[in-house]
Parts: sequence; structure tokens; C-alpha cells
Amino acid sequence: MTSLQLSAKDEMVEKFLDAAARGDLSQVSILLSHVPSLINQTGYSGWTALMLAARNGHHHVVEALLAYGCDKFSVNSSSQTAYDIAKFWGHRHISNLLNRTDDGCQRVLPGSDIRQQENYFSREMLDRLSAKRTDKVWMEAKQIDSGSVYLLFSKLCPMVNSSQDNDDAGGETKLCRFRYEAVKDLVQKPATVLIFLGVEKRKKSCSSKTEEEAWEPPAWFAINTDEDAAELLKRCRENNCFFPKIPNRDLLKLNEEEAGVVAQARSVLAWHSRYSFCPTCGSSTKLEEGGYKRSCLNSDCRSLQGVHNTCYPRVDPVVIMLVIHPDGNQCLLGRKKMFPGGMFSCLAGFIEPGETIEDAVRREVEEESGVKVGPVQYISCQPWPMPSNLMIGCLAVAISTDIRVDENEIEEARWFPRQQVIDSLFRGIHAALTVPPRQTIAHQLIRHWVGMNSNL
Amino acid sequence: MTSLQLSAKDEMVEKFLDAAARGDLSQVSILLSHVPSLINQTGYSGWTALMLAARNGHHHVVEALLAYGCDKFSVNSSSQTAYDIAKFWGHRHISNLLNRTDDGCQRVLPGSDIRQQENYFSREMLDRLSAKRTDKVWMEAKQIDSGSVYLLFSKLCPMVNSSQDNDDAGGETKLCRFRYEAVKDLVQKPATVLIFLGVEKRKKSCSSKTEEEAWEPPAWFAINTDEDAAELLKRCRENNCFFPKIPNRDLLKLNEEEAGVVAQARSVLAWHSRYSFCPTCGSSTKLEEGGYKRSCLNSDCRSLQGVHNTCYPRVDPVVIMLVIHPDGNQCLLGRKKMFPGGMFSCLAGFIEPGETIEDAVRREVEEESGVKVGPVQYISCQPWPMPSNLMIGCLAVAISTDIRVDENEIEEARWFPRQQVIDSLFRGIHAALTVPPRQTIAHQLIRHWVGMNSNL
Repeated sequence: MTSLQLSAKDEMVEKFLDAAARGDLSQVSILLSHVPSLINQTGYSGWTALMLAARNGHHHVVEALLAYGCDKFSVNSSSQTAYDIAKFWGHRHISNLLNRTDDGCQRVLPGSDIRQQENYFSREMLDRLSAKRTDKVWMEAKQIDSGSVYLLFSKLCPMVNSSQDNDDAGGETKLCRFRYEAVKDLVQKPATVLIFLGVEKRKKSCSSKTEEEAWEPPAWFAINTDEDAAELLKRCRENNCFFPKIPNRDLLKLNEEEAGVVAQARSVLAWHSRYSFCPTCGSSTKLEEGGYKRSCLNSDCRSLQGVHNTCYPRVDPVVIMLVIHPDGNQCLLGRKKMFPGGMFSCLAGFIEPGETIEDAVRREVEEESGVKVGPVQYISCQPWPMPSNLMIGCLAVAISTDIRVDENEIEEARWFPRQQVIDSLFRGIHAALTVPPRQTIAHQLIRHWVGMNSNL
Repeated sequence: MTSLQLSAKDEMVEKFLDAAARGDLSQVSILLSHVPSLINQTGYSGWTALMLAARNGHHHVVEALLAYGCDKFSVNSSSQTAYDIAKFWGHRHISNLLNRTDDGCQRVLPGSDIRQQENYFSREMLDRLSAKRTDKVWMEAKQIDSGSVYLLFSKLCPMVNSSQDNDDAGGETKLCRFRYEAVKDLVQKPATVLIFLGVEKRKKSCSSKTEEEAWEPPAWFAINTDEDAAELLKRCRENNCFFPKIPNRDLLKLNEEEAGVVAQARSVLAWHSRYSFCPTCGSSTKLEEGGYKRSCLNSDCRSLQGVHNTCYPRVDPVVIMLVIHPDGNQCLLGRKKMFPGGMFSCLAGFIEPGETIEDAVRREVEEESGVKVGPVQYISCQPWPMPSNLMIGCLAVAISTDIRVDENEIEEARWFPRQQVIDSLFRGIHAALTVPPRQTIAHQLIRHWVGMNSNL
């Protein structure tokens, strides 16, 4: 190696370390994609890019470096790991990221990473208090309680307001919350569907112990109405309220807590909108138990004897899976015609009666792509209220590699190399491949796979 | 230690090793429950009980010894492990049991034991060929094909015959299989529900290649009819045919393959029996797509526009969980009033709309027993066709231990020490605690926990 080459290399290392120290994720990614060997290079006092990013609190850069496969255990000349550095400087979210091994519960459940991914639509800010659903006195008192919170749905979409004037680019939206007085007239109309969601889990911070004890957690309700949407919007003082038009897109702009409430409310309301008649005898039904039951009004109906699923809300289990190539370095993604250009996602499909999760994964992958699957591993799940799916997310290992697409289901399926998937995750729209947004379990499965094969 | 004590101990070791060598599981268990330290004792040439049981092909004793926590890696004076011995003597099922570590797929899916438990009702002997469901020509040809197999259901139970004259004690039952000619009259009746199950997966062993190529896998159908059960039984030449009366009990006597077919057939037939009317408008519906769809006959119905779950069979996801004490050595089991005396099982409950598997586990355990749960780990699942549940089996770690039972749900819940659970599994009815039978996922979750903490 000539001294000139050496110096060019040194310069690049310096540029790379500097980008990591400044938190310039885009520059870090570009340099790594050109010169992957930069990843564990050290500069002054043996500091790596990971240590510099950890020192300066750049969470995204730390995350990307880990995903690119950097060595998180290397030490600098003071024998500190990146974890030690993050901890010392008080960047707790980074030290947590770097320290994904010790966990007291591992002893009780060995052989598994029990650190559960929390997906969008999954957070439960309410305690459902299912035992209260049959307590009519309590329920009626809560309905008219001035502390109770009402969410207002029209065509199964909640009224929201946007935190920015121009929210089309992806600004956060917030649920409009009403008091009983503001929706009393709607609640009293027979065509309105009212359901009980639960009571708030966490107590507000109170100034005194007495105040804390006196605090009653607010109850939450949701109502769905057929009234004119424009009229409904007039109930809000703010003028930036609206009903989302495309649930698949617009409901992904809520914060995590509100998304969880909407997942619950929308699924139950959708069930009421489609299941007003008894499927066993065709008669009308009435809503009961805070919205968690519909009973047939025909006193001779079989559905009134014993316990049957016809009376209860439906949850449809779906498998969604990232299929990994037998070589471990590629994954199978497919695209539907309706996807935006360049977007590919995980394959998915409904679980059939009498089928396990694992067999549904194998059947769906083979039906859609022609690829045969061996081992299947459950990763995490996600309620998807369109209208009431439970997405069960898995990794699956292919045992064949030839692709033969079922064109009724998907337009194209392809093996993508790991590096290209990482580029897509961390460089976003600049990459040739686009993966679904972070709110989808497909995105999280892809991230999980990428992270799993690195030093995470 | 006096020489007398030594000799008594020697005698007991000898008795223990002898019981293992003879395959006397009951004796092995009794001795271990009195003197747990016997487990790894050695006799002549350093042979342990495990080695002796492995040598002589006593699978159940090997399994029990592993569950009791014996050291499977110890070697005798010829440096052989129990695995080496089992392999040498050709006991493959035992060497497989002893060698649960190496697996090529582990490289692709690190951090997980991807060896999947196969539960009862889970085996798929048929390829469902879902793409053929809309192919009317193919479907009609298969229906009248003399090679096709028909199963006959009355009140959602399949006609079976018992392999023993006196089967009440738990003998195996077999599905009665009919040819088209034998059920043609029933198939043609409008009240009969006919569904397509799939075609046989495995080819029969053929004497020549040509014969193999010519072989068409038989198609399977199931029909459910309201006709008089006694009349239906006359269709069978054998006189030991019957329709099971208690599905929860009687359907557990089939072999694994037939149980899988019944899981599929019964779930779909049960859906037809309860969902004959359109839940969206109350009109009648008609069966389509080989029994996997019901379409509304009212041409104005909303359910005919777009894709909605009302037209498709329902699968109800249920969580079932073994809750482990924070100390790792006890598990929480509950009993319902209807259980036989002494029987305790895992807690379970339906997943609600907008809820994850993990949160459903936490909610159900707290509702039923008052115990709070932290980490949850998915283990395996089981279709349970009563009528169409998908049992999602998990281990869960408690973060509180006080029990407060919801008496509407269960009669009693208790923490059971690991040793007592092992005794129940391996000594059966002689134990103070009875756990559900092996065909249930509850049983398998308990076994999994017990095995997990041993050297398995």
C-alpha cells in the first residue's frame, strides 16, 4: 500500500467518524455503502463511530451502525465500550439499545428474547374493565359522568384535528374528545351505536395523596353515527377538525396511545355496522354488555341457548411473514398492484379454520409466491382495525428459492439482499426499494430481521 | 456415614438403576420422589439410569429422567453419553430426544428454538388447494370421482368406528370414509352442506414410476346432514359405527392425521350451521367456493360490495397460558366447576378486538386470578374445533403472586410446585393433581415448561 492510498483511506475514516459524531445519518450510510470496511475503524484514542454517536446522543446513528453489523463490544484506549460511554453521558435510550442481553426474566423463560416489540395500534392506555360491561347501573352512571370522554366516529372514522395547518405531509393528528353534554343528543338517538372502551389506566400526577385517592379514572366511550359529517364537525370549537378519508393511511398519524384506543373502538364499531342481524336466524339483534355482545331478538333462536360466537365481536387472525432465503442473507418481499411504485412488503393472509399459525404461513407463502417454507418463528403481533384483524408476525425460513407468483394475489415477488433492505430502512426514499412505514408490522418484521443478524 | 448407611444407599441406587434398565417408569418415579439425589448416580462402569434406559429403548423413562433434570452430558467409563448409546443401539426416537441442539435452521433464525411442537388437531394430511375452490368444473368432477373420499357429519360430529369392541376406556376411533355412490342421495339434498377439504398430500407407494405419475391424489369432502342418525349408521357395513356424543372428549380418540381433517371440517361446517343468514341485512345466503364463502342472496346488500369478513368462515383466536411464578419453580393452574375432581389446567380466554396476544394474556390472567403478568412468550398453537378456536399457547411470567379468583370464571386457582406437576405428568392418576390429557395444548404447555427447565 502506498502512502498516498493510506492517506486517502485515513481521510475517509476521519470523514466517517466525523459524520457519526455529528449525527449525520445520511452521510454515515452513504460512506458505509461505498466502503463497508469503515464500520469498525477507530480514530483518536481508539474511538469507533459507534462510540462517538453514543457519546453525542445520536440514537438513529447508533441504531443504524448496529444494523450494519458493527462490533458493539470493542473498547477504546480507556477500555470503555460504546455502552459504557452512553451510560456515563446519561443517554439512557442509547445505553438500553446497546445493552440488550441481561434481563431478570430470561432466567424464568430461557431460550427466548422476551423483550417484546410494541407495534402501532398495540398500546393499551385503557383498562377494559370487562366485568363492568354487565353492570348496568355503573355503566349508566359513567355515561352521564361529566368526567367521561367520548370519541365521535362517522363511517367508522374518528373525528380528529391536525396539529399542523398543512398535515398532508404526515403531521400528527389528535382525537377530538367530547364530554357527555356535547354529544348527549347523539347518544340518545336510537341509530347511534355506543360502546364502552374502558377507564384510563394511569393516574394523573396529583399534588396530594388525598387528591390522588379521590381521583376517579375517566371512563371512555365511542359512538358511531350516520348523521351528516359536516354537521358533526360544527360541534368542535377548533376549525381544523375532520374525519379521515383513507383509514389505512390517515389513522397512522395518531400518537401511540390514541392509536391503541382507535384500534379497539373501530374494530368493535365495525362489527356492529356489519352484524346487525342474527346470522343464525336472520332476525334483528340488540346491543348489550357495553357493546361487546349482540343478542338475537327472536326468542326462539338457537343463538340464545348456550354460548356461541355469533353474539360476540369477531377478530380475524392473519399471518404476516418475512421469508428468509436459506442463505440467511436475503428476504422475500412482494408487491400488490395497488402499492406505490417501488414499494414491497411482507406476504400475508388469513388463517383458515383448523389451521395453525405455522401452517398458514407455509400455505400462504407457497400459494402466493411458490416458495416452500420450513421453520416458522413468531415475533410479535399487531391489531389492525381494518376492520378487525390480528396480524400475527413471523419470520420463516425458505427451503426452496424459485419464485412463481399467483397473479391474483400479488404482482411481483423478489428476493432482496440484506444490504439493500438496510439501505431502504435507513435512507428511506433515496433507496431503490421502499418498505412500508414504521407503523406497520411488516416494517417491524423487516427491522427485526436486519437487527437480528447484526450484533444487536 | 456408617457402612450400614452406605450399603442402604448402594442398594437404593441399584434398585433405581435396575428400574430404569427394565423400563419401570412407575418405580423410577417413586424412587426419585423419595430420593431426588438418585438421579445422576452411577453403577457398574459409570452407567447412569439415563444410559441404561437409553440402551434398552425405554423412551418414556428417558423422557421422565430428562424432565426430572438429569445430566444428559455425563459419560460412562467408555466415554459414551446416553445419546451415543441410544444411537449405537439404533433407538432413533431416543437419540433424537437426547440430541435437541443442532439444527441447520438455527443459523438463519438465531435465538429461538424453532423445533415446533405439533399439537393434536394440527396435522395437515390434505393440501387445501384453495385456488381450486372457485374452479366449478374441477370441483364438480371431483365430487363424482369414484376415488374421492366423503366424511359424513351429523350434528357436527363425524361418523366413526371404534377399533375395539369396548372403546369407552379410550380406544382409538377411525373416521368412516365413503365413496360418492354411497352418499350420492345425501349430497343431492338441498339441506345437506357439502364442503371441499383438499386433496391428499402424500403419494401412495407405487410399484412403478408410471404408476406413480398416473396416480391422482384423492379429493376429500365433508357433508353435514340433518337426517336421522340411526338411518345414517345403516350406510356402513361395519356395525361398530357411531356418532360421538361429547366432541370435547370423543374427538380426542382419532389418530393425528384424522384429527387434523376433523379440525378443518368441523370448524367450517359449524360456521355454516350458525351463519346461514347474512349478518349485514338478515337475508338468506348461499354456499360458494367449496364451502369457504357464503354470499348474500339480496342483490342490494352492502356485503356484495368490496371484501368483508361477513362472507368468510370465522376463526376465533384464544390465548391459553401457563403462568410461571417469579421464582421460576411454580406454575399457576386453575379449575372450572365442570372439571373432573383434582383436575387443574392453564388459564385461557378470547382475544378481544384491538388487543395483542400478549395483552390478552395479561388481561385474562389478571381478570381470572388477580395475578399480574409481565413477559409473555409464544410457544405453539392448536386449532380447537369447538367450534372454531385457534388456541394460541404462551408461557407468561408473573410479577405478583397473590391469587384472587373471579368465581364467575373459575372455581379455584393455585400455585403448583414444579415437582408436583412432574409427578402428575409421569404418574398420571396416582398423583394428587391431574392435568388435562396429552391432546390438549394445556398439557403440552405444561410439558414444555417442565422440559424447558431440565436439561432438555
